[in-house]
Amino acid sequence: MTAEIWDIIIVGAGLSGLSAAHLLRKKDAKLRILVLEGKGRVGGRTVTTDIPAAGGVDCWDFGGQWVGSTQTHILELIKELGLETYPQFSTGKKVHHMGGPDAKVRTYRTSIPVLSPMVLMDLTQLLWKLDRLCATVCVQDPSKTPNAVDLDSMTLYSYLEQHTWTAELKEEMGLCSRSVFGMEPCQMSFLFFLMYAAAAGGMLRLLENTPGSAQELKIKGGTQQLSERLTECVGWKNVRLGSAVTAIWQDAEWAKVTTPTETLLCRAVIVTCPPHLAAKIHYEPALPSQREFLSQNMPVGHMIKFIITYQKAFWKEKGFSGEIVAGSSTDCPFSVTFDATSPSGNAALVGLITGQQASQWSSKEAGQRRTAVLSSLVKYLGAEAASFIHYEEKDWAEEDYSGGCPVNVMAPGLLTYYHPSLRKPCGRIHWAGTETATEWCGYMSGAIQAGQRAALEVLAELRPMTLSQEEKEAVRYNQTVKGPNQQSQSFIFAYLSTRKAVVIAILTVSAALLLAQRQNALQKVKTFLTNAFSTTKQNKFLL
Amino acid sequence: MTAEIWDIIIVGAGLSGLSAAHLLRKKDAKLRILVLEGKGRVGGRTVTTDIPAAGGVDCWDFGGQWVGSTQTHILELIKELGLETYPQFSTGKKVHHMGGPDAKVRTYRTSIPVLSPMVLMDLTQLLWKLDRLCATVCVQDPSKTPNAVDLDSMTLYSYLEQHTWTAELKEEMGLCSRSVFGMEPCQMSFLFFLMYAAAAGGMLRLLENTPGSAQELKIKGGTQQLSERLTECVGWKNVRLGSAVTAIWQDAEWAKVTTPTETLLCRAVIVTCPPHLAAKIHYEPALPSQREFLSQNMPVGHMIKFIITYQKAFWKEKGFSGEIVAGSSTDCPFSVTFDATSPSGNAALVGLITGQQASQWSSKEAGQRRTAVLSSLVKYLGAEAASFIHYEEKDWAEEDYSGGCPVNVMAPGLLTYYHPSLRKPCGRIHWAGTETATEWCGYMSGAIQAGQRAALEVLAELRPMTLSQEEKEAVRYNQTVKGPNQQSQSFIFAYLSTRKAVVIAILTVSAALLLAQRQNALQKVKTFLTNAFSTTKQNKFLL
Repeated sequence: MTAEIWDIIIVGAGLSGLSAAHLLRKKDAKLRILVLEGKGRVGGRTVTTDIPAAGGVDCWDFGGQWVGSTQTHILELIKELGLETYPQFSTGKKVHHMGGPDAKVRTYRTSIPVLSPMVLMDLTQLLWKLDRLCATVCVQDPSKTPNAVDLDSMTLYSYLEQHTWTAELKEEMGLCSRSVFGMEPCQMSFLFFLMYAAAAGGMLRLLENTPGSAQELKIKGGTQQLSERLTECVGWKNVRLGSAVTAIWQDAEWAKVTTPTETLLCRAVIVTCPPHLAAKIHYEPALPSQREFLSQNMPVGHMIKFIITYQKAFWKEKGFSGEIVAGSSTDCPFSVTFDATSPSGNAALVGLITGQQASQWSSKEAGQRRTAVLSSLVKYLGAEAASFIHYEEKDWAEEDYSGGCPVNVMAPGLLTYYHPSLRKPCGRIHWAGTETATEWCGYMSGAIQAGQRAALEVLAELRPMTLSQEEKEAVRYNQTVKGPNQQSQSFIFAYLSTRKAVVIAILTVSAALLLAQRQNALQKVKTFLTNAFSTTKQNKFLL
Repeated sequence: MTAEIWDIIIVGAGLSGLSAAHLLRKKDAKLRILVLEGKGRVGGRTVTTDIPAAGGVDCWDFGGQWVGSTQTHILELIKELGLETYPQFSTGKKVHHMGGPDAKVRTYRTSIPVLSPMVLMDLTQLLWKLDRLCATVCVQDPSKTPNAVDLDSMTLYSYLEQHTWTAELKEEMGLCSRSVFGMEPCQMSFLFFLMYAAAAGGMLRLLENTPGSAQELKIKGGTQQLSERLTECVGWKNVRLGSAVTAIWQDAEWAKVTTPTETLLCRAVIVTCPPHLAAKIHYEPALPSQREFLSQNMPVGHMIKFIITYQKAFWKEKGFSGEIVAGSSTDCPFSVTFDATSPSGNAALVGLITGQQASQWSSKEAGQRRTAVLSSLVKYLGAEAASFIHYEEKDWAEEDYSGGCPVNVMAPGLLTYYHPSLRKPCGRIHWAGTETATEWCGYMSGAIQAGQRAALEVLAELRPMTLSQEEKEAVRYNQTVKGPNQQSQSFIFAYLSTRKAVVIAILTVSAALLLAQRQNALQKVKTFLTNAFSTTKQNKFLL
């Protein structure tokens, strides 16, 4: 048997792998590039599906969905591929339910939920602290962050236990953690959380749909088109579906890549699948133990996404935006919903069952899950929610060659001990995938950045002449370390310099003075106020 | 091609797999049992190797080595297989070096190192707290432990940050963590740490070589003999070496097990390899996502073990026991050494380079590592240490089909969310390996207990008539949950009721009063003393 010979084999036909292939071909059209994909489709953690809707059939994203105007890598690709974005609808009342099934369901219209003064004060001081910490994080090399070892030795849960004093805020942060990572605060390193936020330009960007944030825009026709159009650029003949890589051998001359049916030879391999899947591939010679330890410390999150189509967007008519956030203490299975009405006007809601709620609900019957989702929607938006056209869901833990979504997090200690192995090539093997990104890590944009970075790495080895001086420097730069991340610096201060900040500050101080007398929280309030006032000169927080 | 047909296939020819096979055959000699092993030898994490020694050649254990008189499962097996134990030599001065390369090297003769009064006080209160917590842990179902979620949401590091107040004790505990788990305190859940200690009957048992503790006895001729003799019982023809399992398929009738060269059919499979290796097997249908998430949250430790043979045990002649403990802040690469003189009198020392020190030192050249080890031994035991016969080491991270040692730990959140999947069979697949044990989890004895438990599970399905009523109940019992672990209850109180406790208590109080005045530690000391005295009535700590 003669093995097929390629220049570069890419493992995974998601955004990272296809972006790598696309850049490689743009740089040198003669390069023989093959993309191997375990699934029967391209797109990885993005998938766009047709479902019945008011106007017949329309398509929705059941994986990665949103992009933000600060996500330069994906915005450039959208433009290049001739796709269009449109804003996430967010006008109207948002629903907020925390504090147990019987707690009052509140509505609000700003980007900060209606909270009691005490919780608002708690939130303000926490955001302040988190964004100040974020600004100190070195995304390229998190071990260079001040107090890195301490920050990486505790879970996000432990930090919140120490730095919040209201149960409501802890519940809010649990919801944030689940919605962003599909993981509970106890499952990830606090430094990882900070790094992830810093790579996005600040924590609030992860949560909001305001300009620049992660949930700002959507792509007309769905995000899977990105991968489909990239595949067209790369050539469908160069992308093999249903071809899961089982082993990668390396010797002085070749890398040998095997699937259950084929053995292929090449000069370089780019592995783009998430770490827990990359760990299932058999490597010979074995990967360095540090790399093995790395993938043992990066579990993947759990999310179930649902889309419900309706005859009309009854929530809009009732003054709702469609956005609901519900804490895990309520009976509601989902963490968040948003309006998902399509560009052609087909009314829909999208929601996410996340983290441990996803794990609990995934073991139940689909019908039971749907009933619980609908019953919560009826509670929050009204009886019209029960009269839907179609309910469709996707449990990413059940998807072959994914096993979870949206991202692999890092357990405590990983950043301290194993981070250097995250992007470091192992012989002919280069690592991509959104987990290796330094800008919008964990997002589609990060997947593209990582794929392009790995492509440049491979070119620097195989075709150095195709690289510009700038690109060569980028490769070198990515293999070295930069200082503290500048992007997120003073993000909270910009945020707080709006009128909202003044309102929060006034509320906070009033609440502090009122509550201190009757809640025995005097000491904590005093500490907070001292901190707040002591930094006034620098950042004009209260002035 | 006709596939071979077996009744039961066991993945892994370590102590767990072979104990399972042995029990299965004892119960029904007609059962066709096949053990498949990736390595070229039996024994798993135990391996006994001949090396040059004073009397020519002698053998030493480079993996699991010690047993304790409370480890009933392994003691019974030792007896059954006709092997003998002998005590770990511990007479003489022990060396203790903590607090930086220039800190004073101290010696001591008790089981508690010579510590400053402040550190001793800190240690006493910490042990007190830890053992009180241990006594509340439900090993069978740790989620039933009081405050389980809180305890599982923090790392051991976080607990130590909150409950110790001297840097020296933190360093001591780091050393304990590395020596026991091959892991740093920041890498594991605090509840896991407690559960592990509870499964051993208390924390001190993990650390000591006193009667009942983990380092009490050794096996004449080495521990690998256990696996070799078990293989003789099972029949060498039923154990295939160099046969790594790559995939397990299941359908209504069969389990199909594949290696790179064979496909085998059977009725039940027992997977005994550690979780990070079990995760590399391809399963069809896919395992439940909860099981996949479990193995993503159980990283393995890192240890390098060395044996150095000498003409004579010069340390004994100089009054040393051979036991050295050295903190990571010193220049010493190893964490601990012990006397390893063989039963036939060949002098040797055994030592462990552990946790992150193992990771750092494993990337260096073998010669450089050896020089550093010997230079530390010269420093602690005298110039004679440099004149050795042979230096042999084993880096378990480099061993194929191990990738680490001694045990897989549990990251925060695992026990809260995924623990039910640890022993729960997945169709025809049953899970063993020391990580699944409830008594001496992580030790050789636990491996045997787990293998026997899995064997009984399989018999309950395939040959229920071979089981006694008691065994049937054991299977049911293991599939349910018991209350708080009784074994470790009041362990610390028994420990502290010795004269040592009185000495510690007197030292502690004196130190407290002296140091409180000049170290601004008044509040902490007061708290400790209040706690100590307030529990006096119940446990006679100070009386």
